Amino acid sequence: MEIISSLQNPLIKETKKLQQKKYRDIRKEFLVEGVRLVEEGLKAGSLSGAFYEEDLLAQERGRLLVEELSLLVQEKALAYCVQVAPPVLQSLAETRTPQGIVAVARQKEAVLGEATATAAAKPERGLLLVVDGVSDPGNFGTLIRTAWAAGAEAVVCLQGTADCYNAKTIRATMGAVFSAPLITGVSWEDVRRWCRAHGYQIIAGDLAANTVYFDGDYAPKAALVVGSEGQGLSAVRREDVDLCVRIPLANGVESLNAAVAGGLLLYEIMRQRALATVGGNVV
Amino acid sequence: MEIISSLQNPLIKETKKLQQKKYRDIRKEFLVEGVRLVEEGLKAGSLSGAFYEEDLLAQERGRLLVEELSLLVQEKALAYCVQVAPPVLQSLAETRTPQGIVAVARQKEAVLGEATATAAAKPERGLLLVVDGVSDPGNFGTLIRTAWAAGAEAVVCLQGTADCYNAKTIRATMGAVFSAPLITGVSWEDVRRWCRAHGYQIIAGDLAANTVYFDGDYAPKAALVVGSEGQGLSAVRREDVDLCVRIPLANGVESLNAAVAGGLLLYEIMRQRALATVGGNVV
Repeated sequence: MEIISSLQNPLIKETKKLQQKKYRDIRKEFLVEGVRLVEEGLKAGSLSGAFYEEDLLAQERGRLLVEELSLLVQEKALAYCVQVAPPVLQSLAETRTPQGIVAVARQKEAVLGEATATAAAKPERGLLLVVDGVSDPGNFGTLIRTAWAAGAEAVVCLQGTADCYNAKTIRATMGAVFSAPLITGVSWEDVRRWCRAHGYQIIAGDLAANTVYFDGDYAPKAALVVGSEGQGLSAVRREDVDLCVRIPLANGVESLNAAVAGGLLLYEIMRQRALATVGGNVV
Repeated sequence: MEIISSLQNPLIKETKKLQQKKYRDIRKEFLVEGVRLVEEGLKAGSLSGAFYEEDLLAQERGRLLVEELSLLVQEKALAYCVQVAPPVLQSLAETRTPQGIVAVARQKEAVLGEATATAAAKPERGLLLVVDGVSDPGNFGTLIRTAWAAGAEAVVCLQGTADCYNAKTIRATMGAVFSAPLITGVSWEDVRRWCRAHGYQIIAGDLAANTVYFDGDYAPKAALVVGSEGQGLSAVRREDVDLCVRIPLANGVESLNAAVAGGLLLYEIMRQRALATVGGNVV
């Protein structure tokens, strides 16, 4: 079996380019690191190739993963699964300890129309998370993970928001990147128009709002906008927001972490829907 | 004015030791980096000394901060505020860009008795966050920040939990480290006994629980235990928990980020109290 040991190998050089947003955008692919995330990508049918180092085979879980990947290569469902020398794997990884495996995954390229399709399947309700200018990749990934857990049908990443296919963001999604439809590179104007056309209420958190978030009157179809911790909303105009709600803060506290604040609002919308639903469970 | 330019300067060498938990524990001090956190430490009266580099004086906000600190030195309320050469500042910092200033702050050394004192002031209710084995410093700091925002009177960091005076944790608290009473190095047995003696209900999140968290019946005095994302509870025994609640997760989602999950439970307890209180606001 061939082992790639040169950093100059053309496949390695091409793959390494996916560390740059420019190439991720062109190729609609991204890199995932570590056994857990690669397993999730495999389960989701999102992988196009994989690189591993010998050490991975020493662990049962790693060995099984490589076996499964190699089977897919035989079935032509995966382009390659090749062993590489440790320095080669390290060069593809963005963490210091890439846990023995790095894979190339396809972006899902969801569009607002797909969210419509999902909404059409349960036309009486919908939940979109719109991320507007969140710059910390860890918070961004955690938001994606939380939105998916709370039953959102898609996450819209407005132009100007950090790249959701950045390695740190991917890690923080804990695999939700493979499940949650991500809609990227759309303008607020597009999203606003879509929300108006499909009867989605536009909701945002605001420290100065009169309504406390657990008293908010959320519509059955809702688009929650989450902005950055420091700057608040960026592309979204205040006058486009139908409902501003405030999370109460103890004296002297200026703000919450963006992912925590987004989680509170997403789950509050979910809680109110659960109360209104027979059986009490909407996710 | 003297400028410290040597890494061998005794004050620098002693200060640098605070990058190690061992010395933080002995001296009951910790390091804070950056204008914003040093301002918070100053406001809280928690600082014992500060180091800055010349560039800081070029910004209005930085110059004002150094002026205030220098005034405190004259009033003998601060031991020193000295200019250092950039490599010296860098050696004291744990971030690559320490924003021109690093200060030494005193740990508050809260004990469970102080939480009692606070509880005695409003004897009808209480809220403690008990952190059990959360290892990610960012999540840990975000939990402290969120607990303080939700009106918790103290955060208990059980033995075995990451050090809350670690630089990354401090940054993630966004200054809450200076406000929230932190109780460190206590055993679960101590906390359990204290909770029993003072009528605190012990609550934990559990994916297998029957009760959904927004249907939980929370007592007016509550201690919420948050464990690690992967392992769950560590020092806390399941049989000591009075109420286990579950956060609903969409199909295929295994868990939430620990800080998001903790935030949801803290704010749900707060929400139910707000509903039960005239005026509707408990924080």
